[in-house]
Amino acid sequence: MNTTAVNASIITIGDELLIGQTIDTNSAFIAQELNKIGIWVHRRLAVGDLYDDIWKALEEEEKQSDLILITGGLGPTADDITKPLLCDYFGGKLVVNEQVLAHVRYLFEKVYNRTGPILERNLKQAEVPDTCEVLHNARGTAPGMWFNKPRTNAPLNPPKGEGSARGATAKGAMTVFISLPGVPHEMKGLMRDQVIPKLLQEFTLPAIVHRTAFTAGQGESMIAELLHEYEAALPGHIKLAYLPNYGMVKLRLTARGINQEELEREMAPYFNQLLVLVKEYLVADEDAGLEIVVGKILKAKGQTMGTAESCTGGYIAHLLTSVPGSSAYYKGTVVSYANEIKTRVLGVRPGTLASAGAVSEETVIEMVKGAIETLQVDFALATSGIMGPDGGSPEKPVGTVWIAAGNKEKTATLKLNLRFDRQRNIDLTAVNALNFLRKFILANS
Amino acid sequence: MNTTAVNASIITIGDELLIGQTIDTNSAFIAQELNKIGIWVHRRLAVGDLYDDIWKALEEEEKQSDLILITGGLGPTADDITKPLLCDYFGGKLVVNEQVLAHVRYLFEKVYNRTGPILERNLKQAEVPDTCEVLHNARGTAPGMWFNKPRTNAPLNPPKGEGSARGATAKGAMTVFISLPGVPHEMKGLMRDQVIPKLLQEFTLPAIVHRTAFTAGQGESMIAELLHEYEAALPGHIKLAYLPNYGMVKLRLTARGINQEELEREMAPYFNQLLVLVKEYLVADEDAGLEIVVGKILKAKGQTMGTAESCTGGYIAHLLTSVPGSSAYYKGTVVSYANEIKTRVLGVRPGTLASAGAVSEETVIEMVKGAIETLQVDFALATSGIMGPDGGSPEKPVGTVWIAAGNKEKTATLKLNLRFDRQRNIDLTAVNALNFLRKFILANS
Repeated sequence: MNTTAVNASIITIGDELLIGQTIDTNSAFIAQELNKIGIWVHRRLAVGDLYDDIWKALEEEEKQSDLILITGGLGPTADDITKPLLCDYFGGKLVVNEQVLAHVRYLFEKVYNRTGPILERNLKQAEVPDTCEVLHNARGTAPGMWFNKPRTNAPLNPPKGEGSARGATAKGAMTVFISLPGVPHEMKGLMRDQVIPKLLQEFTLPAIVHRTAFTAGQGESMIAELLHEYEAALPGHIKLAYLPNYGMVKLRLTARGINQEELEREMAPYFNQLLVLVKEYLVADEDAGLEIVVGKILKAKGQTMGTAESCTGGYIAHLLTSVPGSSAYYKGTVVSYANEIKTRVLGVRPGTLASAGAVSEETVIEMVKGAIETLQVDFALATSGIMGPDGGSPEKPVGTVWIAAGNKEKTATLKLNLRFDRQRNIDLTAVNALNFLRKFILANS
Repeated sequence: MNTTAVNASIITIGDELLIGQTIDTNSAFIAQELNKIGIWVHRRLAVGDLYDDIWKALEEEEKQSDLILITGGLGPTADDITKPLLCDYFGGKLVVNEQVLAHVRYLFEKVYNRTGPILERNLKQAEVPDTCEVLHNARGTAPGMWFNKPRTNAPLNPPKGEGSARGATAKGAMTVFISLPGVPHEMKGLMRDQVIPKLLQEFTLPAIVHRTAFTAGQGESMIAELLHEYEAALPGHIKLAYLPNYGMVKLRLTARGINQEELEREMAPYFNQLLVLVKEYLVADEDAGLEIVVGKILKAKGQTMGTAESCTGGYIAHLLTSVPGSSAYYKGTVVSYANEIKTRVLGVRPGTLASAGAVSEETVIEMVKGAIETLQVDFALATSGIMGPDGGSPEKPVGTVWIAAGNKEKTATLKLNLRFDRQRNIDLTAVNALNFLRKFILANS
């Protein structure tokens, strides 16, 4: 198989990204999907709803990428700039696409159940440049558009010393531009149903293999020290990356080459060696959240869990129930933000609250016992702490957190002293609590 | 006051952003903070950990921006590329900064409580190019760096027809580059404590005023129709943007000019007119989440609430408890993922579950009643639905959701038929439920 690397750029359009009102989750999704099929996103660019800025972005990325994905700028109120611009850039004129028109009518009449005539601005969504191939958007009115543009020049500046598996190589006479709507679920549907299958058809792609080891409880620099010799001995086409996040460090090995299966075989011993080296801190041999790891363990054992949350306010429950099928092992939570609920629903003794306080080892132990009884589960996890910005005291400053994990026989506790803002304190408490429960389950069943 | 516009670029460095493993929240935060002081971020660019790609990004943005903010590429394992590159780009050589060194030692010895010698790679974090001004990072070991580089050329392509308030104008002999670590809370601290105050000192900045009207219950195109004439009559320096998200549409007015107070006075009548036009769908006259809006209403009334969540699995509780001070009105939730918890803790009758099912109007009504009694609150909100991907049936397909809101006297219900993936179904249920509760509280108290 003769493969050449495909270098992609993602351009997102919209003022809301530039003033920080919206966090760009689309780019991450697109990058992930492209990466899976061996396309390397080497640049991501966001620009505002300005004709000249969008034009310049297209020109710049065309110079250095084989594939350019564009999202945003296509809603019923944003069309005015982007579509005429695409006509100017790729040639051609706006024409009504009958299939898109029928789909817009169908959505308004059958799905949205709108009465009265369809608005002019919605009908205009069926207009597309006659130079594009329309990609059907099953989930909304704005279609995707695929443009082939004769390649104007070979990519500039091929990365030095990265070898041909990553270097950009002109692979044909065309640069591909794909324009997608910015609404996340519409964009995602189009990527999965239309863009990825067509890319697989049109390009001969190299192979990329990623394997991730997920560690907790040790800092990035200590782990780097541990892996110093290992990393130096890796072959040139296998790369190690450190991804520290919320008290965990993900270690990602990436291999690039020609043949997927061969690459996986080649990667295996290096990945296994990595797992052995970080054994003490290893949470999982995959890039999965702790809520998935804990769920897998419980599912395999046929056991159940519940939570009793105070300071995390339901966030642990949310993480656990975000996993499809979690109802098989997760029964529920009691969020006892108020002390009387700790007492009334979870059976924490008023005396304990009065003497030790709500944020105490004694209270979280009683919360775990109450949760096991109330929710009738095999394992329970409890949190109580002060997340800030207010509520701290000299004895219990903001960031003081007690965690307990237990089963019917036994309870273990952990104290944290966090130093961050409210949101990060909640996140860190959830991650630490789930990891603490994971270890408790493994040690006690 | 003589002001000229400052155009900024944000460059984020890191392979993890390009393979989609990490969502870029840093850029949104930086853009927000810059925007508040009147700096317009016109481009955001993400590149990988490659010398040439980073170099090219610096060169490109230098050509078209007055200020370039760089995040990432500065951890103890990522330093090797970025810092030498900064020396090459700005001239100078790496030298140990004694203040940073003392801070690194302090963090390791006093804060992290590490025993044993500090690692060489951590000591190296105290090395900085001698051409920069060091910005103290109180929250971590990697300092911020401020570089002034003689301006090489005036910005290219000033945006057409946007007037001088937005067009890029050379304002001095220097282009400013600021390099910040990528760890979010370190970056945020540096922005607030160091970068923003210094930018306010070094630049004379124009004024920007944003006002947002937050609507729910009507689509983007219908609202655009409603605002057609209004929008056309806006003066040139006031711009209306539509930000649709999860069944809500935010309408943002942005004014750019010279004097902040004058701009606010000028904006007021236009914003008030907007509020009147969308009155029927208006949730709030600010860019606040529904969890904040509901909290404000309850706080003003001195009343309390609780939730009984099934399909949202604690997400509504999480949203509500993310708001500092929410314990004043939010008492807690019972997440009854399992039916027996609906019965045991919330008192839903087994007969109701057997005849009408867990996802039914009857069940959510009993959940609300149970929550009011169990949690002893003035208002309660309940959700039960099928979020997918599994669990649907012909009568109750995936996306069927029942919501109930009530007080001691009365309960109201709402049925949703959602058509999305699990995560989006959870999000949409939470938003609709909070809005339903908001209306219920306003109508019944």
